[in-house]
Amino acid sequence: DQPFALIAGPCQLETLDHARMLAEKIAAAAEANRTPWIFKGSFDKANRSSLEGKRGIGMDEGLHILSTIGREFGVPVLTDVHETAQCAPVAEAVDILQIPAFLCRQTDLLLAAGETGAAINIKKGQFLAPHDMGNVADKIASTGNQRIMLCERGTSFGYNMLVSDFRALPIMAQTGYPVVFDATHSVQMPGGMGKSSGGKREYVEPLARAALAVGCAAVFMETHEAPDTAPSDGPNMVPVEALGHVLHGLRAIDDLTKGRTEALAHLFA
Amino acid sequence: DQPFALIAGPCQLETLDHARMLAEKIAAAAEANRTPWIFKGSFDKANRSSLEGKRGIGMDEGLHILSTIGREFGVPVLTDVHETAQCAPVAEAVDILQIPAFLCRQTDLLLAAGETGAAINIKKGQFLAPHDMGNVADKIASTGNQRIMLCERGTSFGYNMLVSDFRALPIMAQTGYPVVFDATHSVQMPGGMGKSSGGKREYVEPLARAALAVGCAAVFMETHEAPDTAPSDGPNMVPVEALGHVLHGLRAIDDLTKGRTEALAHLFA
Amino acid sequence: DQPFALIAGPCQLETLDHARMLAEKIAAAAEANRTPWIFKGSFDKANRSSLEGKRGIGMDEGLHILSTIGREFGVPVLTDVHETAQCAPVAEAVDILQIPAFLCRQTDLLLAAGETGAAINIKKGQFLAPHDMGNVADKIASTGNQRIMLCERGTSFGYNMLVSDFRALPIMAQTGYPVVFDATHSVQMPGGMGKSSGGKREYVEPLARAALAVGCAAVFMETHEAPDTAPSDGPNMVPVEALGHVLHGLRAIDDLTKGRTEALAHLFA
Amino acid sequence: DQPFALIAGPCQLETLDHARMLAEKIAAAAEANRTPWIFKGSFDKANRSSLEGKRGIGMDEGLHILSTIGREFGVPVLTDVHETAQCAPVAEAVDILQIPAFLCRQTDLLLAAGETGAAINIKKGQFLAPHDMGNVADKIASTGNQRIMLCERGTSFGYNMLVSDFRALPIMAQTGYPVVFDATHSVQMPGGMGKSSGGKREYVEPLARAALAVGCAAVFMETHEAPDTAPSDGPNMVPVEALGHVLHGLRAIDDLTKGRTEALAHLFA
Repeated sequence: DQPFALIAGPCQLETLDHARMLAEKIAAAAEANRTPWIFKGSFDKANRSSLEGKRGIGMDEGLHILSTIGREFGVPVLTDVHETAQCAPVAEAVDILQIPAFLCRQTDLLLAAGETGAAINIKKGQFLAPHDMGNVADKIASTGNQRIMLCERGTSFGYNMLVSDFRALPIMAQTGYPVVFDATHSVQMPGGMGKSSGGKREYVEPLARAALAVGCAAVFMETHEAPDTAPSDGPNMVPVEALGHVLHGLRAIDDLTKGRTEALAHLFA
Repeated sequence: DQPFALIAGPCQLETLDHARMLAEKIAAAAEANRTPWIFKGSFDKANRSSLEGKRGIGMDEGLHILSTIGREFGVPVLTDVHETAQCAPVAEAVDILQIPAFLCRQTDLLLAAGETGAAINIKKGQFLAPHDMGNVADKIASTGNQRIMLCERGTSFGYNMLVSDFRALPIMAQTGYPVVFDATHSVQMPGGMGKSSGGKREYVEPLARAALAVGCAAVFMETHEAPDTAPSDGPNMVPVEALGHVLHGLRAIDDLTKGRTEALAHLFA
Repeated sequence: DQPFALIAGPCQLETLDHARMLAEKIAAAAEANRTPWIFKGSFDKANRSSLEGKRGIGMDEGLHILSTIGREFGVPVLTDVHETAQCAPVAEAVDILQIPAFLCRQTDLLLAAGETGAAINIKKGQFLAPHDMGNVADKIASTGNQRIMLCERGTSFGYNMLVSDFRALPIMAQTGYPVVFDATHSVQMPGGMGKSSGGKREYVEPLARAALAVGCAAVFMETHEAPDTAPSDGPNMVPVEALGHVLHGLRAIDDLTKGRTEALAHLFA
Repeated sequence: DQPFALIAGPCQLETLDHARMLAEKIAAAAEANRTPWIFKGSFDKANRSSLEGKRGIGMDEGLHILSTIGREFGVPVLTDVHETAQCAPVAEAVDILQIPAFLCRQTDLLLAAGETGAAINIKKGQFLAPHDMGNVADKIASTGNQRIMLCERGTSFGYNMLVSDFRALPIMAQTGYPVVFDATHSVQMPGGMGKSSGGKREYVEPLARAALAVGCAAVFMETHEAPDTAPSDGPNMVPVEALGHVLHGLRAIDDLTKGRTEALAHLFA
């Protein structure tokens, strides 16, 4: 029942200066709202809707930026991996490996990630039920690594649309692992813009509030100083100027939720 | 931005004494948590999964109970209508007519309800998008009656399952009408028990919390002293003993949400 | 294992002359393809998306047209009912009462329809699983009327979209009642045009072919001489000039399906 | 408008003798029904629901079996790849590389597969709309390889359930690439048995018939002599003894569909 952590950063890493600028603004917002935070950035967008989407700056430069930010700001850093061979080198530079949603059932990737000993944030596939994530976590736990987080990021709902089922948070929490709510990708509209995904940034804050009212360990929120011109996921990133405001509201809800007396579970039996 | 109201009562009306007993407990919980409340009860379950499900006590007895409770407790009362001819007599006995979700597109029923001048709570069909509810409300507004509430109660998600899309609350609020979250039927599993609907009562509280964190005008929550033996919707009714506890948490979240400074909407534009 | 029947006609009845003109073209197409047929037309569209949609010509005129067509062409006629009081008078004029999808759980309407002794075509609700239709049929069968047809017309799939699950045909056939595939409303996009439903007429033929390849007793297909200017469901009605062509292909598939030797069910056990 | 091809074989390769035994039975069924066929088998099940599921015999042994079957029976062989490094060696042994549904957006895997020059069968992700597959195919086509097949295998529909949307076949055919219907995985119930996927083998034949009535270039159907004891996908594989019977019906429908005179497309405009 610790306070929620914020996982924040740009969808794609751009330059070290850009990452530093965002990290400073995230740090300020987080400190003003007593919120532990983790810096997030991707070095490769390996599954863009279309070849026309920008891929990213590459692993070498990306890991350099991430480890620099981690050292300079004294925060854990997180990035995603896509093939087994990436896990070991990435784990030398970052604290948390993230398994992308589409890849959450790839046994070899899960095992390779687990074997690094790093913490692992597994995004729940858009095609999976929350109660199926226990089997996914077990694959990692089989390596002896129990530093697992399970992350809700929306479920397929018709075409080009996701829906956030908030029952998923308590269901996944039954595994005993911390549960993350990804407020950015939950409002994505996959493929909704033809050559790239659309999204509705105005629902990031309401859904993040909902997640903390239900209860979760961390909120994942991508942010950018100019989302509309960002290289990816612009439609659903939060402008970094709004982050402090959003965080203020989230902090208050989390304090309420975490401060609750025991739920009268027996009454609901 | 007034405090949220609670709409509570049994799924089916049983006897006047039973309604009175529940109303007393609801009143106590509501007053302890400074929450305006509305008594809810159905006299006829007109669309049970199967003929074997109990229908209810009938309109005459039901309206007598409802108007008695309203008078004795000084609260508004609400019940649902199923055919046009019921609207006028029901509106003489109750304050709020409720349009069942399956019937939310039946033009004649909406017009007849609107013409009574009573307040109308329209459940959003499980088959409708939230942005389609404007057309539904317009049917009632065409009668000159603007006392309209729009109620989210879950959307079809595969078979025998609903999902609550919390984006629906702000989307429906764009109509300008107050939005209600029905925490009881949102956790229903339609037809999930073969001859009747199943449900998961343990998600009522988390989803109600989520709704108030997102922001809504009222929460609908059915309650019973012994849900497991109630004539209908037992799997998803909250035990009345737990109501005060649940309400305490909801009150705190609502206070936070309603007390927010203006959202920085321009930052999200 | 009789040949499939065609249920065809306009979405809304317009005038007797119009109905006669369409009936002549349907009759020609049906006879050329050895297909028994049933004339379909609605006198009231009781659940339009918006008040701005045309309602229809009314019950008196509609029943007059329907009974005239039935007599002149020697075919059964079908129309839909919306409230219990309509069932008895409608059953005096037509052969088959149709229960709209939204209303397929309304017990009183089902009982009133059943009690007329007319054949009843029940559209499966967009919110229902195919295995739940047994309970629905039982409501009608409880009146002693076993002349029941169960009709697939698409299931909610995200917002403003339906999907046709062809497993539904054999599942509903397990009740022993004939199963109808409504190829018109299965391609509807509910509310998809803001003030009215959209649809994709080009999928009517492929889905009807699929239904007959899987096996069904009847195909429901609305038709019009100028769908794009029809008062309702234009986007998904088949131009009546195309009907013979479509029917020719359907007839051939149905002959194959109905002529099959016994499926080797034991091999699939 | 060539006759449909059958893609058949076991879910997992077991031994060379086992593959030969199945290939003989498939060959007999295919020849009796004038159906060109392709042998399919997986050497690694890289995304089992749970670690407890059997993985497979490995790449070396698997490719040896596949190339042997291809040579002995004179048929193309197909297998799936999971990481970029597998593409080149696998393409030396087989004719068709298959991209698993979960991986259909992994740009590097698509590019590596495309660069082999082998034919590529891309399974549509359960989370993708059919109109989004054009972007996926473009990734492969960017390598200069146009030997692409697009495969429908069901779309997420609630939890632990897929639905087959047959509109997907004509929609994907608009790309100009041949469209495959995977009748085996379309009836899968992902994660439906807790530690493994369930399925309903009795719907394989009806859905395959539907696909050919709508029109497609190939049907994918896994088969086994004793599905209930097969190492994976048992619940949805067809017993190889039933294959000839199923194929007989499919052949007849395909002949009808492919022999159609031009659809009167202008009438549907």
